[in-house]
Amino acid sequence: MSRFFIEIKYDGTNYHGWQIQDNASSVQAELNKALSTILQEKIDVVGAGRTDAGVHAQQLFAHFDITSEFDIEKTIFKLNKFLPDDISCTSITKVNDESHARFAATARTYEYWITPTKNPFLVNKAYHLPYSLNLDLMNEATQHLLKYTDFSCFSKSNTDTFTNDCDITFAQWEQKNNCIVFTITANRFLRNMVRAIVGTLLEIGQKKLTIEELITIFKSKNRSNAGTSAPAHGLYLAEVKYPFKIMNAE
Amino acid sequence: MSRFFIEIKYDGTNYHGWQIQDNASSVQAELNKALSTILQEKIDVVGAGRTDAGVHAQQLFAHFDITSEFDIEKTIFKLNKFLPDDISCTSITKVNDESHARFAATARTYEYWITPTKNPFLVNKAYHLPYSLNLDLMNEATQHLLKYTDFSCFSKSNTDTFTNDCDITFAQWEQKNNCIVFTITANRFLRNMVRAIVGTLLEIGQKKLTIEELITIFKSKNRSNAGTSAPAHGLYLAEVKYPFKIMNAE
Repeated sequence: MSRFFIEIKYDGTNYHGWQIQDNASSVQAELNKALSTILQEKIDVVGAGRTDAGVHAQQLFAHFDITSEFDIEKTIFKLNKFLPDDISCTSITKVNDESHARFAATARTYEYWITPTKNPFLVNKAYHLPYSLNLDLMNEATQHLLKYTDFSCFSKSNTDTFTNDCDITFAQWEQKNNCIVFTITANRFLRNMVRAIVGTLLEIGQKKLTIEELITIFKSKNRSNAGTSAPAHGLYLAEVKYPFKIMNAE
Repeated sequence: MSRFFIEIKYDGTNYHGWQIQDNASSVQAELNKALSTILQEKIDVVGAGRTDAGVHAQQLFAHFDITSEFDIEKTIFKLNKFLPDDISCTSITKVNDESHARFAATARTYEYWITPTKNPFLVNKAYHLPYSLNLDLMNEATQHLLKYTDFSCFSKSNTDTFTNDCDITFAQWEQKNNCIVFTITANRFLRNMVRAIVGTLLEIGQKKLTIEELITIFKSKNRSNAGTSAPAHGLYLAEVKYPFKIMNAE
């Protein structure tokens, strides 16, 4: 048996998220189907993390085990023919048998894209928010995120995680291609966390919430005190890092 | 009666082109419906040109006449609420009563986008062509376009134009954001011309056609000698120029 990492990208618009579900389309199910058909062996991929319905991935790794041998380049070529247009495979790399796509990941980066003007080319790809935002204030508030580790206030309450501690190493708002983009890196994220953070920081940018109130929300550790979640379609899983090298086809 | 120019953008994927047709969706019909409803007067827009089914526009101007007065900023705001997500209005400008969106235009620029790698975020937005292209050779061939004026060899034969002369002032291939982009500017274009030029130049880039053969095609003035048309979904009307100033809201 050998273990491989597969690197993919997807537009999440047409999926009920990464994870396999009954009676709903998922990226994981598409990937299992494509790999099993092409490699002629039942393949079950394990992803680096879940993305919710409508959330996109510029880079997501998953691992799978296989007994037979196969040609990597030919398999990538066939996968990109077989997979739907909105899912692509960037690379496949042989890894150590114990390398786990989820547990071995040391850092994950998300991006959240906002378009202030209506843009026909960003339908389902960025959140259209036609209000002026104070980016300086949002960046000032963002720096407070780096001071905390318990993100209970930004997590769905009924999650099965044993801890709500996250180590955020980078978080910033910037202007990019006529959009406003939030980038955040952490060792791990809780369910719904990025969208809840973005929703809350957008309230600060619109002066509906003060930085003092944000600090109070943090201290409360209660999700119901934070702002509403920003919509799924602006969110991208942008990068997943591992402590070992993974060949990137691009 | 006053005349106005309206500036729009659209993703052409869901339309059978710009022009109104029976039993088929069109950008022109959507615009007429939105303007007539909001301005409470029957409005018929005249566009700067037609785009085929699936072709996009980053900038297209149309003119319309109206007897009543209206608030421009409020109308743009309402239009962007009323129009489908894949059509947006950028500006509305009062112009001279004789200014004609099609006949007054002095230059039009098109872009053609090609993605060499499968990209889930460019489905219907760029042509996926997974072959290596010799860009230098394509740019060399492109320079020959500037030497000719009769583009009969790159036009659909049954068009109602009185002349096939076009004055191409700029044409170039370049790498942009992991894509290969062809930009071409002329005073006017014949039907299907850009897609036929792109299809032919792509054959040169893949060494299926030589520059000498391209010159022979030009001299033949016969469409059937040129390459096949590149698909519609890679094509964008990018800019339309007029000899008078039009306020751009962006």
